[in-house]
Amino acid sequence: MTETIQLARQLIQIESVTPDDNGCQHVIADYLRPLGFQIEPMPFGDVSNLWARRGETGPFIVFAGHTDVVPTGPADQWQYPPFSAHIDDKGQLYGRGSADMKSSIACFMVATKRFVAKHPDPKGSIGFLITSDEEGPAVDGTVKVVEALEARGEKYDYCLVGEPSSSQQLGDSIKNGRRGSLSGRLTVKGIQGHIAYPELAENPIHTLAPALKTLTETVWDTGNEYFPPTSFQVSNIHAGTGATNVIPGDCVVDFNFRFSTEQTPNSLKQAVHAILDGCEFHYDLQWNLSGLPFITPAEGKLIQAVSKAIKQKTGLQTQLSTGGGTSDGRFIAQTGAQVIELGPLNATIHKIDEHVSVDDLNQLTDIYEQTLINLLVD
Amino acid sequence: MTETIQLARQLIQIESVTPDDNGCQHVIADYLRPLGFQIEPMPFGDVSNLWARRGETGPFIVFAGHTDVVPTGPADQWQYPPFSAHIDDKGQLYGRGSADMKSSIACFMVATKRFVAKHPDPKGSIGFLITSDEEGPAVDGTVKVVEALEARGEKYDYCLVGEPSSSQQLGDSIKNGRRGSLSGRLTVKGIQGHIAYPELAENPIHTLAPALKTLTETVWDTGNEYFPPTSFQVSNIHAGTGATNVIPGDCVVDFNFRFSTEQTPNSLKQAVHAILDGCEFHYDLQWNLSGLPFITPAEGKLIQAVSKAIKQKTGLQTQLSTGGGTSDGRFIAQTGAQVIELGPLNATIHKIDEHVSVDDLNQLTDIYEQTLINLLVD
Ligand SMILES: [Zn+2]
Ligand SMILES: [Zn+2]
Repeated sequence: MTETIQLARQLIQIESVTPDDNGCQHVIADYLRPLGFQIEPMPFGDVSNLWARRGETGPFIVFAGHTDVVPTGPADQWQYPPFSAHIDDKGQLYGRGSADMKSSIACFMVATKRFVAKHPDPKGSIGFLITSDEEGPAVDGTVKVVEALEARGEKYDYCLVGEPSSSQQLGDSIKNGRRGSLSGRLTVKGIQGHIAYPELAENPIHTLAPALKTLTETVWDTGNEYFPPTSFQVSNIHAGTGATNVIPGDCVVDFNFRFSTEQTPNSLKQAVHAILDGCEFHYDLQWNLSGLPFITPAEGKLIQAVSKAIKQKTGLQTQLSTGGGTSDGRFIAQTGAQVIELGPLNATIHKIDEHVSVDDLNQLTDIYEQTLINLLVD
Repeated sequence: MTETIQLARQLIQIESVTPDDNGCQHVIADYLRPLGFQIEPMPFGDVSNLWARRGETGPFIVFAGHTDVVPTGPADQWQYPPFSAHIDDKGQLYGRGSADMKSSIACFMVATKRFVAKHPDPKGSIGFLITSDEEGPAVDGTVKVVEALEARGEKYDYCLVGEPSSSQQLGDSIKNGRRGSLSGRLTVKGIQGHIAYPELAENPIHTLAPALKTLTETVWDTGNEYFPPTSFQVSNIHAGTGATNVIPGDCVVDFNFRFSTEQTPNSLKQAVHAILDGCEFHYDLQWNLSGLPFITPAEGKLIQAVSKAIKQKTGLQTQLSTGGGTSDGRFIAQTGAQVIELGPLNATIHKIDEHVSVDDLNQLTDIYEQTLINLLVD
């Protein structure tokens, strides 16, 4: 069993359901300290954050990741106990956090150890930014560390986020951006009444229906070079108390935009209000912005180094992607750093029987090490 | 205080929340027996029903009503305790059941007493069909009595239902029919998924939106001489678990038609299926028919007698109406009897502070008595 797999198993066996780091970051710190890293715990609230840096010069590449995992769901539905880090006879490592994303942390730890052994005095610096609050509200995690580093003027050039980015094969896809996320809660006001007297009531479901059709059919944009078209989805719609003879008094709709850099929160808000105002009814609309879109252009040095490393170690020409949910990359990108996400296959994340290939992890260590070489040596 | 008001207060003071008659029908039976009525309790399940008949010949006019009342709601929101039958200084009798419809029963009891005193041997028969299950599921109430009478071949020509039919003034409106009621529960199937990956999911709210718009905008018919246009209303729409990052797996919609004799349940079902099938999505649709529409034509003897009685006692030219919810009249009309509904003002029924005018009740007794004269004497 390689050191990568040993380390990955050690981290997976620590039950660190968000936001409880439960000692994972001690394991990481104890591993990095002898490699010459300055270790700096940066707790905020009940969130554990770890900042570690080796070197004083630029370029500065930071590995970002999280030790927290989502809850296991019903543990008895797992083939193997979710914190047992069992490896089956097909070479699959099972466990909550195996793909998202304790294994990536282990890979980067081992890659760093190997790299500094061969290149004890590279031309730049290496850092680790590890949080225990990525799967939770993400309020006291990466964003707080980024702010603290900004406040003291500590800059980094490149950030490699270990989120599971691969789709079918390790390295087939890296994320060089993420869509923004803007949510709204729309309340349409009607007048409650008995269903036999519709003339005395005003049915908010009927009022809403034309606008709902328009909202769900609107093409907001066609995307761009990096982003798919902006997506609008309704997550919840509720009206009515259950009584089948009452016209409800209001209808509440939750919706969410995943939006490209073709849009701003304001452009989307204006478009929605234009549709609703055009339908002439009374409504209330509360907005919540979860994240702005960000993009790291393909021509940047980080993407060049990572793509080259993937090609060198797997032969694959990696694809750039901006799909999927939000990630902590959105906080780091605001600093101006180039940010990409590269990690193992994401097929089983957040699911029962989350697992990852042992061979893939060993190869991911190689890719990470080669990335460091490509950025800090060549 | 007149006998009508005394009797009405006595009935209102009995807490008979549906389906608990709680002794009301004993009061009625004890009143009718000395007047020459044959008393026949017809309990079904936990529902009390009373059948009473005086006379063997035709024409046979039956007064139909219910002793059960809807719950009071928060009793402390009432101006006067809901079962106190308080009369305020404006001559309003307050209480649950004061308008719907214990007072009507009292009026018909007194009208009958007066009538048989003057006409001990009229040319026809008088009956009472009283249930304690009109406000509830209406399964073991009037419908069962109607079936039992049918089974033994007992026929009646006219039925006067005491439901509160008046709108602004006593007698300004009588109901000579009711719309039918047909309900549906529509379930649109989608594929649940994460909101960041809409391409892997299928949002049933989006699928439904165009059909919902069409359903709410469709003109089903324009009504006819007796009926307003058929009305379609959605009472409930629910999709989503509350999580704002999940595309829900299905969307459930409850809707209801109040339909005229221009439609049949089948014509409406076919029209809805045509709309849904035209939108090409998977759905499940469960239908529930609560009542067929019925109509008693204006030229029948019952309407003539009642309209004339109203004119004689109030000077008003009453209007025929088929509005409002379903009533037990729908069960009685199926026998072929002429059915109308005449009762006090319906403004406060089922509400906090339900009340009715004492003067109106005394006048209603006069109208009922005159109706008996018009049908059985003149
Ligand atoms: Zn993750
Ligand atoms: Zn009633």
